[in-house]
Amino acid sequence: MAARLLEVYLDLLSQPCRAVSLLLGCTSIPHTVRTVALRRGEQRSPEFTKLNPMQKVPVLVDNGFVLKESDAILKYLASKYDVPDHWYPRQPEKRARVDEYTAWHHSNTRPHAAKVFILEVLLPTQTGSPVDEGRLSRALSELDDTLVKMESMFLRRQPFLCGDDITLADLLAVCELMQPLGGGRDVLKDRPPLQRWRSRVQAAVGEHFDRAHAVLYALRDRQRARL
Amino acid sequence: MAARLLEVYLDLLSQPCRAVSLLLGCTSIPHTVRTVALRRGEQRSPEFTKLNPMQKVPVLVDNGFVLKESDAILKYLASKYDVPDHWYPRQPEKRARVDEYTAWHHSNTRPHAAKVFILEVLLPTQTGSPVDEGRLSRALSELDDTLVKMESMFLRRQPFLCGDDITLADLLAVCELMQPLGGGRDVLKDRPPLQRWRSRVQAAVGEHFDRAHAVLYALRDRQRARL
Repeated sequence: MAARLLEVYLDLLSQPCRAVSLLLGCTSIPHTVRTVALRRGEQRSPEFTKLNPMQKVPVLVDNGFVLKESDAILKYLASKYDVPDHWYPRQPEKRARVDEYTAWHHSNTRPHAAKVFILEVLLPTQTGSPVDEGRLSRALSELDDTLVKMESMFLRRQPFLCGDDITLADLLAVCELMQPLGGGRDVLKDRPPLQRWRSRVQAAVGEHFDRAHAVLYALRDRQRARL
Repeated sequence: MAARLLEVYLDLLSQPCRAVSLLLGCTSIPHTVRTVALRRGEQRSPEFTKLNPMQKVPVLVDNGFVLKESDAILKYLASKYDVPDHWYPRQPEKRARVDEYTAWHHSNTRPHAAKVFILEVLLPTQTGSPVDEGRLSRALSELDDTLVKMESMFLRRQPFLCGDDITLADLLAVCELMQPLGGGRDVLKDRPPLQRWRSRVQAAVGEHFDRAHAVLYALRDRQRARL
Protein backbone atom coordinates (compact mmCIF):
# COMPACT_ATOMS: atom_id res chain seq x y z
CA MET A 1 0.00 0.00 0.00
CA ALA A 2 1.35 3.42 -0.91
CA ALA A 3 2.07 5.79 1.96
CA ARG A 4 -0.28 8.72 2.41
CA LEU A 5 1.16 11.68 0.54
CA LEU A 6 0.53 15.24 1.68
CA GLU A 7 2.01 17.92 -0.55
CA VAL A 8 1.83 21.69 -0.19
CA TYR A 9 2.68 24.13 -2.97
CA LEU A 10 4.15 27.23 -1.36
CA ASP A 11 6.27 30.35 -1.77
CA LEU A 12 7.31 31.59 1.68
CA LEU A 13 7.28 35.17 0.42
CA SER A 14 3.48 34.81 0.34
CA GLN A 15 1.78 35.59 3.66
CA PRO A 16 -0.91 32.85 3.51
CA CYS A 17 1.74 30.29 2.50
CA ARG A 18 3.74 31.13 5.63
CA ALA A 19 0.64 30.57 7.79
CA VAL A 20 0.22 27.09 6.29
CA SER A 21 3.92 26.38 6.73
CA LEU A 22 3.75 27.47 10.40
CA LEU A 23 0.83 25.17 11.22
CA LEU A 24 2.53 22.24 9.49
CA GLY A 25 5.75 22.96 11.38
CA CYS A 26 4.12 23.37 14.79
CA THR A 27 2.01 20.23 14.47
CA SER A 28 4.71 18.05 12.84
CA ILE A 29 2.31 16.76 10.18
CA PRO A 30 4.48 14.84 7.69
CA HIS A 31 4.38 16.65 4.35
CA THR A 32 6.38 17.53 1.26
CA VAL A 33 6.88 21.15 0.21
CA ARG A 34 6.78 21.96 -3.51
CA THR A 35 8.12 25.47 -4.01
CA VAL A 36 6.34 27.67 -6.55
CA ALA A 37 8.61 30.70 -7.06
CA LEU A 38 6.23 33.61 -7.61
CA ARG A 39 8.96 36.00 -8.71
CA ARG A 40 9.85 33.62 -11.51
CA GLY A 41 6.14 33.39 -12.44
CA GLU A 42 6.04 29.65 -11.73
CA GLN A 43 2.38 29.96 -10.66
CA ARG A 44 1.60 30.56 -14.34
CA SER A 45 3.32 27.39 -15.58
CA PRO A 46 1.07 24.91 -17.42
CA GLU A 47 1.62 22.24 -14.73
CA PHE A 48 0.70 24.52 -11.84
CA THR A 49 -2.21 26.08 -13.73
CA LYS A 50 -3.61 22.59 -14.20
CA LEU A 51 -3.48 22.16 -10.41
CA ASN A 52 -4.90 25.61 -9.66
CA PRO A 53 -6.43 27.49 -12.61
CA MET A 54 -6.51 30.57 -10.32
CA GLN A 55 -2.68 30.48 -10.42
CA LYS A 56 -2.34 31.17 -6.70
CA VAL A 57 -0.52 29.62 -3.80
CA PRO A 58 -0.92 27.92 -1.38
CA VAL A 59 -2.37 24.70 -2.74
CA LEU A 60 -2.66 21.49 -0.73
CA VAL A 61 -2.77 18.04 -2.32
CA ASP A 62 -3.71 15.31 0.13
CA ASN A 63 -3.69 11.92 -1.54
CA GLY A 64 -5.20 13.45 -4.67
CA PHE A 65 -7.57 15.86 -2.89
CA VAL A 66 -6.70 19.35 -4.17
CA LEU A 67 -7.55 22.31 -1.93
CA LYS A 68 -6.94 26.04 -2.37
CA GLU A 69 -7.34 29.04 -0.02
CA SER A 70 -5.09 29.18 3.06
CA ASP A 71 -8.07 29.66 5.38
CA ALA A 72 -9.67 26.42 4.15
CA ILE A 73 -6.32 24.58 4.09
CA LEU A 74 -5.57 25.46 7.72
CA LYS A 75 -9.02 24.37 8.87
CA TYR A 76 -8.85 21.16 6.84
CA LEU A 77 -5.42 20.28 8.27
CA ALA A 78 -6.64 20.94 11.82
CA SER A 79 -9.72 18.74 11.33
CA LYS A 80 -8.25 15.94 9.26
CA TYR A 81 -4.97 15.52 11.14
CA ASP A 82 -6.31 15.74 14.65
CA VAL A 83 -3.91 18.48 15.75
CA PRO A 84 -4.07 19.87 19.33
CA ASP A 85 -7.57 21.26 19.79
CA HIS A 86 -6.46 24.83 20.58
CA TRP A 87 -5.53 25.48 16.92
CA TYR A 88 -9.16 25.20 15.83
CA PRO A 89 -11.33 24.28 18.82
CA ARG A 90 -14.19 21.82 18.33
CA GLN A 91 -16.45 23.49 20.89
CA PRO A 92 -18.94 25.52 18.75
CA GLU A 93 -18.59 28.89 20.55
CA LYS A 94 -14.78 28.73 20.52
CA ARG A 95 -14.68 27.60 16.90
CA ALA A 96 -17.08 30.41 15.98
CA ARG A 97 -14.57 32.93 17.39
CA VAL A 98 -11.94 31.61 14.96
CA ASP A 99 -14.38 31.69 12.04
CA GLU A 100 -15.38 35.22 13.05
CA TYR A 101 -11.81 36.49 12.93
CA THR A 102 -10.89 34.68 9.71
CA ALA A 103 -13.98 36.06 7.93
CA TRP A 104 -13.07 39.57 9.11
CA HIS A 105 -9.42 39.01 8.17
CA HIS A 106 -10.19 38.66 4.45
CA SER A 107 -11.69 42.14 4.18
CA ASN A 108 -9.43 43.88 6.70
CA THR A 109 -5.99 42.63 7.83
CA ARG A 110 -5.29 40.79 4.58
CA PRO A 111 -5.99 43.51 1.96
CA HIS A 112 -4.74 46.43 4.05
CA ALA A 113 -1.38 44.99 5.10
CA ALA A 114 -0.81 43.49 1.66
CA LYS A 115 -1.44 46.84 -0.01
CA VAL A 116 1.35 48.50 1.98
CA PHE A 117 3.79 45.81 0.81
CA ILE A 118 2.56 46.01 -2.79
CA LEU A 119 2.94 49.80 -2.92
CA GLU A 120 6.25 49.96 -1.08
CA VAL A 121 8.07 46.89 -2.42
CA LEU A 122 6.33 44.97 -5.19
CA LEU A 123 5.27 47.73 -7.60
CA PRO A 124 8.55 49.73 -7.38
CA THR A 125 10.54 46.52 -7.98
CA GLN A 126 8.38 45.45 -10.92
CA THR A 127 8.03 48.83 -12.62
CA GLY A 128 11.19 50.67 -11.53
CA SER A 129 8.98 53.64 -10.57
CA PRO A 130 9.29 55.39 -7.20
CA VAL A 131 6.80 54.66 -4.41
CA ASP A 132 3.48 56.47 -4.88
CA GLU A 133 3.53 58.38 -1.57
CA GLY A 134 -0.09 59.51 -1.77
CA ARG A 135 -1.44 56.00 -2.24
CA LEU A 136 0.96 54.64 0.39
CA SER A 137 -0.21 57.17 2.93
CA ARG A 138 -3.86 56.23 2.30
CA ALA A 139 -3.01 52.52 2.56
CA LEU A 140 -1.20 53.09 5.87
CA SER A 141 -4.15 54.97 7.25
CA GLU A 142 -6.53 52.14 6.24
CA LEU A 143 -4.20 49.61 7.83
CA ASP A 144 -4.09 51.73 10.98
CA ASP A 145 -7.84 51.56 11.23
CA THR A 146 -7.59 47.76 11.07
CA LEU A 147 -4.85 47.68 13.74
CA VAL A 148 -6.96 49.81 16.08
CA LYS A 149 -9.83 47.34 15.68
CA MET A 150 -7.54 44.38 16.32
CA GLU A 151 -6.37 45.94 19.58
CA SER A 152 -9.67 47.35 20.78
CA MET A 153 -11.87 44.42 19.80
CA PHE A 154 -10.11 41.10 19.22
CA LEU A 155 -7.31 41.60 21.74
CA ARG A 156 -9.26 43.69 24.25
CA ARG A 157 -9.54 41.13 27.01
CA GLN A 158 -7.47 38.17 25.83
CA PRO A 159 -3.86 37.31 24.93
CA PHE A 160 -4.59 35.84 21.46
CA LEU A 161 -7.04 36.96 18.77
CA CYS A 162 -9.65 34.33 19.59
CA GLY A 163 -9.07 33.54 23.26
CA ASP A 164 -6.53 32.32 25.77
CA ASP A 165 -4.53 30.15 23.40
CA ILE A 166 -3.08 30.45 19.92
CA THR A 167 -5.32 29.48 16.99
CA LEU A 168 -4.89 29.40 13.24
CA ALA A 169 -6.35 32.93 13.20
CA ASP A 170 -3.19 34.23 14.90
CA LEU A 171 -1.06 32.54 12.23
CA LEU A 172 -2.99 34.15 9.37
CA ALA A 173 -2.86 37.54 11.07
CA VAL A 174 0.79 37.57 12.11
CA CYS A 175 1.96 36.55 8.63
CA GLU A 176 0.06 39.46 7.06
CA LEU A 177 1.31 41.97 9.62
CA MET A 178 4.92 40.82 9.14
CA GLN A 179 4.79 41.33 5.35
CA PRO A 180 5.57 45.10 5.19
CA LEU A 181 8.83 44.26 6.99
CA GLY A 182 10.02 43.12 3.55
CA GLY A 183 10.23 46.86 2.79
CA GLY A 184 11.79 47.63 6.18
CA ARG A 185 8.53 48.76 7.76
CA ASP A 186 7.37 47.42 11.12
CA VAL A 187 3.67 48.32 11.09
CA LEU A 188 3.39 47.45 14.81
CA LYS A 189 6.17 49.90 15.80
CA ASP A 190 3.83 52.26 17.69
CA ARG A 191 1.41 49.62 18.90
CA PRO A 192 2.57 47.98 22.16
CA PRO A 193 -0.52 45.74 22.61
CA LEU A 194 -0.08 44.25 19.13
CA GLN A 195 3.67 43.97 19.68
CA ARG A 196 3.07 41.95 22.83
CA TRP A 197 0.60 39.78 20.93
CA ARG A 198 3.19 39.19 18.18
CA SER A 199 5.75 38.18 20.82
CA ARG A 200 3.27 35.72 22.31
CA VAL A 201 2.61 34.22 18.87
CA GLN A 202 6.35 34.05 18.20
CA ALA A 203 6.95 32.30 21.54
CA ALA A 204 4.12 29.83 20.91
CA VAL A 205 5.40 29.01 17.42
CA GLY A 206 9.08 28.80 18.41
CA GLU A 207 11.84 28.27 15.86
CA HIS A 208 9.29 27.82 13.06
CA PHE A 209 8.61 31.55 13.13
CA ASP A 210 12.03 32.70 11.97
CA ARG A 211 12.36 29.74 9.63
CA ALA A 212 9.13 30.66 7.83
CA HIS A 213 10.15 34.32 7.70
CA ALA A 214 13.76 33.84 6.56
CA VAL A 215 12.94 34.78 2.95
CA LEU A 216 11.16 37.94 4.14
CA TYR A 217 14.11 38.92 6.37
CA ALA A 218 16.45 38.42 3.39
CA LEU A 219 14.25 40.66 1.26
CA ARG A 220 14.32 43.35 3.97
CA ASP A 221 18.12 43.15 4.10
CA ARG A 222 18.42 43.46 0.31
CA GLN A 223 16.09 46.48 0.33
CA ARG A 224 18.21 48.07 3.07
CA ALA A 225 21.44 47.44 1.16
CA ARG A 226 19.93 49.26 -1.82
CA LEU A 227 19.37 52.50 0.12
CA MET B 1 -35.73 27.43 33.64
CA ALA B 2 -35.72 30.17 31.01
CA ALA B 3 -36.19 29.08 27.40
CA ARG B 4 -33.18 29.24 25.13
CA LEU B 5 -33.22 32.59 23.33
CA LEU B 6 -31.70 33.01 19.87
CA GLU B 7 -31.80 36.52 18.49
CA VAL B 8 -30.50 37.83 15.17
CA TYR B 9 -30.00 41.50 14.38
CA LEU B 10 -30.66 42.00 10.68
CA ASP B 11 -31.56 44.38 7.89
CA LEU B 12 -32.78 42.38 4.89
CA LEU B 13 -31.37 45.00 2.53
CA SER B 14 -27.93 43.69 3.57
CA GLN B 15 -26.74 40.70 1.55
CA PRO B 16 -25.09 38.76 4.42
CA CYS B 17 -28.17 39.32 6.59
CA ARG B 18 -30.35 37.71 3.92
CA ALA B 19 -28.05 34.66 3.86
CA VAL B 20 -28.49 34.25 7.63
CA SER B 21 -32.25 34.77 7.30
CA LEU B 22 -32.42 32.10 4.55
CA LEU B 23 -30.60 29.47 6.60
CA LEU B 24 -32.79 30.18 9.63
CA GLY B 25 -35.91 29.94 7.46
CA CYS B 26 -34.88 26.73 5.67
CA THR B 27 -33.89 24.94 8.87
CA SER B 28 -36.79 26.22 11.02
CA ILE B 29 -34.47 27.11 13.91
CA PRO B 30 -36.63 29.04 16.41
CA HIS B 31 -35.35 32.61 16.60
CA THR B 32 -36.33 36.23 17.07
CA VAL B 33 -35.44 38.87 14.47
CA ARG B 34 -34.39 42.31 15.71
CA THR B 35 -34.43 44.71 12.78
CA VAL B 36 -31.60 47.24 12.56
CA ALA B 37 -32.63 49.72 9.85
CA LEU B 38 -29.39 50.71 8.14
CA ARG B 39 -30.97 53.55 6.17
CA ARG B 40 -32.04 55.14 9.43
CA GLY B 41 -28.50 54.63 10.81
CA GLU B 42 -29.72 52.36 13.61
CA GLN B 43 -26.41 50.42 13.48
CA ARG B 44 -24.81 53.54 15.01
CA SER B 45 -27.21 53.74 17.96
CA PRO B 46 -25.58 53.46 21.42
CA GLU B 47 -27.42 50.19 22.17
CA PHE B 48 -26.37 48.48 18.96
CA THR B 49 -22.82 49.83 19.16
CA LYS B 50 -22.55 48.23 22.58
CA LEU B 51 -23.51 44.91 21.00
CA ASN B 52 -21.23 45.34 17.97
CA PRO B 53 -18.65 48.15 18.16
CA MET B 54 -18.02 47.56 14.43
CA GLN B 55 -21.59 48.84 13.86
CA LYS B 56 -22.38 46.15 11.33
CA VAL B 57 -25.11 43.60 10.79
CA PRO B 58 -25.73 40.68 11.07
CA VAL B 59 -25.16 39.94 14.74
CA LEU B 60 -26.30 36.75 16.45
CA VAL B 61 -26.99 36.54 20.17
CA ASP B 62 -27.45 32.98 21.38
CA ASN B 63 -28.26 32.91 25.08
CA GLY B 64 -25.78 35.71 25.68
CA PHE B 65 -23.12 34.52 23.19
CA VAL B 66 -22.59 37.41 20.75
CA LEU B 67 -21.27 36.56 17.28
CA LYS B 68 -20.56 38.77 14.25
CA GLU B 69 -19.67 37.98 10.62
CA SER B 70 -22.29 36.19 8.51
CA ASP B 71 -19.79 33.49 7.48
CA ALA B 72 -19.13 32.58 11.13
CA ILE B 73 -22.81 32.91 12.07
CA LEU B 74 -23.90 30.49 9.33
CA LYS B 75 -21.26 27.93 10.31
CA TYR B 76 -22.07 28.28 14.01
CA LEU B 77 -25.80 27.79 13.38
CA ALA B 78 -25.13 24.72 11.24
CA SER B 79 -22.88 23.16 13.90
CA LYS B 80 -24.77 24.14 17.03
CA TYR B 81 -28.29 23.44 15.81
CA ASP B 82 -27.64 20.16 14.08
CA VAL B 83 -29.19 21.22 10.76
CA PRO B 84 -29.27 18.77 7.80
CA ASP B 85 -25.66 17.87 7.04
CA HIS B 86 -25.67 19.15 3.44
CA TRP B 87 -25.66 22.78 4.60
CA TYR B 88 -22.17 22.41 6.08
CA PRO B 89 -21.01 18.79 5.72
CA ARG B 90 -19.06 17.21 8.57
CA GLN B 91 -16.89 15.08 6.27
CA PRO B 92 -13.53 16.97 6.14
CA GLU B 93 -13.12 17.06 2.34
CA LYS B 94 -16.69 18.22 1.77
CA ARG B 95 -16.47 20.80 4.54
CA ALA B 96 -13.17 22.04 3.11
CA ARG B 97 -14.95 22.78 -0.19
CA VAL B 98 -17.38 25.08 1.66
CA ASP B 99 -14.53 26.78 3.56
CA GLU B 100 -12.65 27.15 0.25
CA TYR B 101 -15.55 28.95 -1.41
CA THR B 102 -16.39 31.16 1.58
CA ALA B 103 -12.73 32.28 1.91
CA TRP B 104 -12.67 33.11 -1.82
CA HIS B 105 -16.06 34.82 -1.55
CA HIS B 106 -14.78 37.54 0.79
CA SER B 107 -12.22 38.82 -1.72
CA ASN B 108 -14.23 38.20 -4.88
CA THR B 109 -18.03 37.79 -5.05
CA ARG B 110 -18.66 39.95 -1.99
CA PRO B 111 -16.66 43.11 -2.80
CA HIS B 112 -17.28 43.05 -6.55
CA ALA B 113 -21.05 42.60 -6.50
CA ALA B 114 -21.42 45.01 -3.58
CA LYS B 115 -19.45 47.69 -5.44
CA VAL B 116 -21.89 47.65 -8.37
CA PHE B 117 -24.79 48.22 -5.96
CA ILE B 118 -22.92 50.94 -4.07
CA LEU B 119 -22.05 52.84 -7.26
CA GLU B 120 -25.40 52.42 -8.95
CA VAL B 121 -27.81 52.77 -6.02
CA LEU B 122 -26.29 53.70 -2.66
CA LEU B 123 -23.97 56.60 -3.56
CA PRO B 124 -26.41 58.33 -5.96
CA THR B 125 -29.18 58.05 -3.33
CA GLN B 126 -26.97 59.37 -0.53
CA THR B 127 -25.25 62.18 -2.44
CA GLY B 128 -27.80 63.06 -5.13
CA SER B 129 -24.98 62.86 -7.70
CA PRO B 130 -25.35 60.92 -10.95
CA VAL B 131 -23.79 57.44 -11.30
CA ASP B 132 -20.02 57.57 -11.96
CA GLU B 133 -20.09 55.65 -15.26
CA GLY B 134 -16.32 55.15 -15.43
CA ARG B 135 -16.11 53.56 -11.99
CA LEU B 136 -19.27 51.54 -12.63
CA SER B 137 -17.84 50.15 -15.84
CA ARG B 138 -14.62 49.08 -14.05
CA ALA B 139 -16.66 47.51 -11.22
CA LEU B 140 -18.79 45.58 -13.73
CA SER B 141 -15.69 44.29 -15.45
CA GLU B 142 -14.19 43.14 -12.12
CA LEU B 143 -17.47 41.44 -11.25
CA ASP B 144 -17.48 39.76 -14.66
CA ASP B 145 -14.08 38.26 -13.94
CA THR B 146 -15.51 36.81 -10.72
CA LEU B 147 -18.58 35.42 -12.52
CA VAL B 148 -16.37 33.73 -15.12
CA LYS B 149 -14.42 32.04 -12.30
CA MET B 150 -17.62 30.95 -10.56
CA GLU B 151 -18.82 29.27 -13.75
CA SER B 152 -15.53 27.83 -14.93
CA MET B 153 -14.23 26.66 -11.56
CA PHE B 154 -16.82 26.26 -8.81
CA LEU B 155 -19.74 25.25 -11.06
CA ARG B 156 -17.76 23.44 -13.73
CA ARG B 157 -18.83 19.91 -12.94
CA GLN B 158 -21.46 20.25 -10.23
CA PRO B 159 -24.92 21.80 -9.72
CA PHE B 160 -24.05 23.82 -6.58
CA LEU B 161 -20.91 25.79 -5.70
CA CYS B 162 -19.49 23.11 -3.41
CA GLY B 163 -20.95 19.87 -4.73
CA ASP B 164 -24.19 18.04 -5.47
CA ASP B 165 -26.29 19.72 -2.82
CA ILE B 166 -26.90 23.24 -1.56
CA THR B 167 -24.59 24.55 1.18
CA LEU B 168 -24.30 27.80 3.08
CA ALA B 169 -21.81 28.91 0.41
CA ASP B 170 -24.64 29.08 -2.13
CA LEU B 171 -26.67 31.26 0.26
CA LEU B 172 -23.84 33.75 0.73
CA ALA B 173 -23.18 33.84 -3.03
CA VAL B 174 -26.75 34.16 -4.25
CA CYS B 175 -27.52 37.00 -1.84
CA GLU B 176 -24.52 38.99 -3.12
CA LEU B 177 -25.37 38.36 -6.77
CA MET B 178 -28.99 39.40 -6.23
CA GLN B 179 -27.99 42.77 -4.70
CA PRO B 180 -27.49 44.80 -7.93
CA LEU B 181 -31.12 43.97 -8.76
CA GLY B 182 -31.94 46.73 -6.28
CA GLY B 183 -30.82 49.08 -9.07
CA GLY B 184 -32.66 47.09 -11.73
CA ARG B 185 -29.55 45.22 -12.89
CA ASP B 186 -29.53 41.43 -13.24
CA VAL B 187 -25.80 40.66 -13.30
CA LEU B 188 -26.52 37.07 -14.42
CA LYS B 189 -28.49 38.19 -17.50
CA ASP B 190 -25.93 36.89 -20.01
CA ARG B 191 -24.74 33.93 -17.94
CA PRO B 192 -26.96 30.87 -18.46
CA PRO B 193 -24.89 28.52 -16.23
CA LEU B 194 -25.11 30.93 -13.28
CA GLN B 195 -28.81 31.55 -14.03
CA ARG B 196 -29.47 27.82 -13.85
CA TRP B 197 -27.52 27.68 -10.58
CA ARG B 198 -29.60 30.53 -9.16
CA SER B 199 -32.79 28.71 -10.15
CA ARG B 200 -31.55 25.59 -8.38
CA VAL B 201 -30.78 27.60 -5.23
CA GLN B 202 -34.18 29.27 -5.45
CA ALA B 203 -35.92 25.90 -5.80
CA ALA B 204 -33.97 24.44 -2.87
CA VAL B 205 -34.76 27.41 -0.63
CA GLY B 206 -38.42 27.67 -1.67
CA GLU B 207 -40.70 30.45 -0.43
CA HIS B 208 -37.95 31.79 1.85
CA PHE B 209 -36.13 33.17 -1.19
CA ASP B 210 -38.74 35.74 -2.20
CA ARG B 211 -39.55 36.49 1.42
CA ALA B 212 -35.91 37.38 2.18
CA HIS B 213 -35.65 39.43 -1.02
CA ALA B 214 -38.95 41.32 -0.71
CA VAL B 215 -37.23 44.51 0.50
CA LEU B 216 -34.77 44.33 -2.43
CA TYR B 217 -37.61 43.83 -4.94
CA ALA B 218 -39.40 46.85 -3.44
CA LEU B 219 -36.23 48.93 -3.82
CA ARG B 220 -35.95 47.86 -7.47
CA ASP B 221 -39.56 48.87 -8.09
CA ARG B 222 -39.03 52.28 -6.46
CA GLN B 223 -35.91 52.84 -8.58
CA ARG B 224 -37.88 51.91 -11.71
CA ALA B 225 -40.73 54.29 -10.82
CA ARG B 226 -38.18 57.11 -10.53
CA LEU B 227 -37.01 56.70 -14.17
